[in-house]
Amino acid sequence: MRFINCAKPYNCPVFYIIRADVGQTLKYRYLCPHCHLFYHFCSKIIMQFTISATDTASNARAATFQTAHGAIETPIFMPVGTLGTVKGVHQQELHDAVSAQIILGNTYHLYLRPGLEVLKSAGGLHKFNGWNKPILTDSGGYQVYSLAHRRKITEEGVKFQSHIDGSRHLFTPENVMDIQRTIGADIIMAFDECTPYPCDYTYARKSLGLTHRWLKRCINRFDATQAHYGYPQYLFPIVQGSVYKDLRMKSAEKIASFDRVGNAIGGLSVGEPAEDMYAMTDVVCNILPADKPRYLMGVGTPVNILECIALGIDMFDCVMPTRNARHGMLFTSEGIIHIKNKKWECDFSPIDANCPAPTSQNHSKAYLRHLFKAGELLALQIASLHNLAFYLWLVGEARKQIINGTFYAWKNKMVPRLQTKL
Amino acid sequence: MRFINCAKPYNCPVFYIIRADVGQTLKYRYLCPHCHLFYHFCSKIIMQFTISATDTASNARAATFQTAHGAIETPIFMPVGTLGTVKGVHQQELHDAVSAQIILGNTYHLYLRPGLEVLKSAGGLHKFNGWNKPILTDSGGYQVYSLAHRRKITEEGVKFQSHIDGSRHLFTPENVMDIQRTIGADIIMAFDECTPYPCDYTYARKSLGLTHRWLKRCINRFDATQAHYGYPQYLFPIVQGSVYKDLRMKSAEKIASFDRVGNAIGGLSVGEPAEDMYAMTDVVCNILPADKPRYLMGVGTPVNILECIALGIDMFDCVMPTRNARHGMLFTSEGIIHIKNKKWECDFSPIDANCPAPTSQNHSKAYLRHLFKAGELLALQIASLHNLAFYLWLVGEARKQIINGTFYAWKNKMVPRLQTKL
Repeated sequence: MRFINCAKPYNCPVFYIIRADVGQTLKYRYLCPHCHLFYHFCSKIIMQFTISATDTASNARAATFQTAHGAIETPIFMPVGTLGTVKGVHQQELHDAVSAQIILGNTYHLYLRPGLEVLKSAGGLHKFNGWNKPILTDSGGYQVYSLAHRRKITEEGVKFQSHIDGSRHLFTPENVMDIQRTIGADIIMAFDECTPYPCDYTYARKSLGLTHRWLKRCINRFDATQAHYGYPQYLFPIVQGSVYKDLRMKSAEKIASFDRVGNAIGGLSVGEPAEDMYAMTDVVCNILPADKPRYLMGVGTPVNILECIALGIDMFDCVMPTRNARHGMLFTSEGIIHIKNKKWECDFSPIDANCPAPTSQNHSKAYLRHLFKAGELLALQIASLHNLAFYLWLVGEARKQIINGTFYAWKNKMVPRLQTKL
Repeated sequence: MRFINCAKPYNCPVFYIIRADVGQTLKYRYLCPHCHLFYHFCSKIIMQFTISATDTASNARAATFQTAHGAIETPIFMPVGTLGTVKGVHQQELHDAVSAQIILGNTYHLYLRPGLEVLKSAGGLHKFNGWNKPILTDSGGYQVYSLAHRRKITEEGVKFQSHIDGSRHLFTPENVMDIQRTIGADIIMAFDECTPYPCDYTYARKSLGLTHRWLKRCINRFDATQAHYGYPQYLFPIVQGSVYKDLRMKSAEKIASFDRVGNAIGGLSVGEPAEDMYAMTDVVCNILPADKPRYLMGVGTPVNILECIALGIDMFDCVMPTRNARHGMLFTSEGIIHIKNKKWECDFSPIDANCPAPTSQNHSKAYLRHLFKAGELLALQIASLHNLAFYLWLVGEARKQIINGTFYAWKNKMVPRLQTKL
């Protein structure tokens, strides 16, 4: 997809090509209907997803995904920035200490606060929050599903009440595309129903039909509308189907048939056993096209991430590193630490000497424990920064191991260590 | 003051000189009673407080105060780090974005949490919290006074109950010196009674007597004990006397007579009118020696600080910039901002383009307002960082103006601007 703007004072995005093939050289002459001038341009559309290495012992791969806000090297973990901020972490820290390459925003939350008018006036979320690398927004499907008795699902969409003031709203596949256009994320997600766990087969099958019909409506709306801020956005459809293999296969085939830039797997990590998560991920990864990124939504622990990289997943997000950090649970290169425990009171060794965050190397476990016991804000800051930097370190190491051809053995060595309770 | 260690394996601080005059060259031969070896050293004690410039139109001065953890350029504002952390601000941010030169710790709080055993094991507060510039600790006098019905003042000291678990403790002038030796601050404060406002003359006079008797006990204990961590500490006595000129004069004369490295003024900014604060500060500054730093405790607003610099104060501390920040009140170069107000909802101008903190330059008022409205941690982080960086910018500007000989006119121009409600 490619944009040009017409001359000032119009300066509006007047032209774009939908779904031009990557790698193709384009030559255009275009008459702008606003300023009545001809524009010429010639452009080679760069590869959006380039695989650098694949693992021989597993389905893991290392790749690069290009966006208007920069390249994403996969496998990647995406810190969750629900309300336009990753909780407790400055944007500069995300960049420098965490080495985040892409962060998430939540459509449901951003729609309610600060609201679309503010985001539009700001020129989109990137300008609003000052994060100039890629952003992905979820569709709000998961959040409205979480509202339980405050929402009603119909064919049209989901009626729900705001958790803030009880005000009533309607999300449809169409307006969720419009909202995500306004937020301005680089990657936007289809509006789906995220089934709970457990979920009986009949409900899962019916829900899947709805998700697929909504997807068609999402695509129609997305392709009929333009990006607001002069850079392209990509729509990822989402595979659903609960823990039922046949539904997951059917859904993966359906999603693959739309041939979008990337694909996602939703409805996992919602309480099912890890084996079910891995089994469903495996089934779906074998159907989703290998030449497009695969994003496993809402996953998970460090071990989940390594196992699912082995199954062919490229992108992950999860609130776990930040949420657990705020409760004093640290993921480290040696295992799991509950930092509030008495045993760390006089342990003056670094929080994690292998973690790239300077605060994890320079501050001791004893100091961080003290900050938690004293209820200090800095406790949440240091712990959140640590867990995120550790997650990014872990996926970065996985990438290196894939490129070196040593991923599978490394993963099998890491898994027991990552689960150790220190 | 100067230390040497005896040879390993003893490596204990075996020798020090109390109160060697600055500027003096010392030559020593010393027989260590532990390892039975002679040690020779020669050292020129550097000037501790060097005045670079004095204002002709006021009593303001720009100076440099040397400590073992580095030089402090005055006038200076000291961020308050009650529990070994400035709330919501990483140490690296204090260094890089705030340009803090010295921070405070609170004896009362650190004594309760993490406690002296932890601090001693860590090797003192600097090593514990990773702040390797100067630290000043208050004596706990203000905190135990604030406990109201949870404390009892006697000639011996103050019995009080912990605000955390109700446990009973006793602070005396002697053990407060010992505690501050263990914390390891560069500058430690005398244990005093901080009188409330209003305070009747009789009580203020009696209290002052107690404060002076306690000071003598503090000095005796301080001079009879050694620093724990191999670098010198300095004890600052505190002028009290409520809002009574004669008591303040008497106290200032008494405090000056002890001829310590620096002197402090306490018991102001406790609710009295600003004119009383200025009047008392003026009276005291005219008595305290000009060749030693003067520290006005717990002050204040940006305007208070400029006015008191004009009266001859060199050092300030206050919780206001961080506490008010957490409530959404920002001090800026253009005036005061209540960032939660609706008027900032779509104001995409920088928080304060003149503030050296990158977050104040790069984030908009609208974004910070959104973070506050959404209850995000990052709101507290950005606002705290901003207010502190602004305070340090302000005292840094004051210093430049003093050196340029333009302080008084600049101060009179700034005062109305700093009070403007935006």
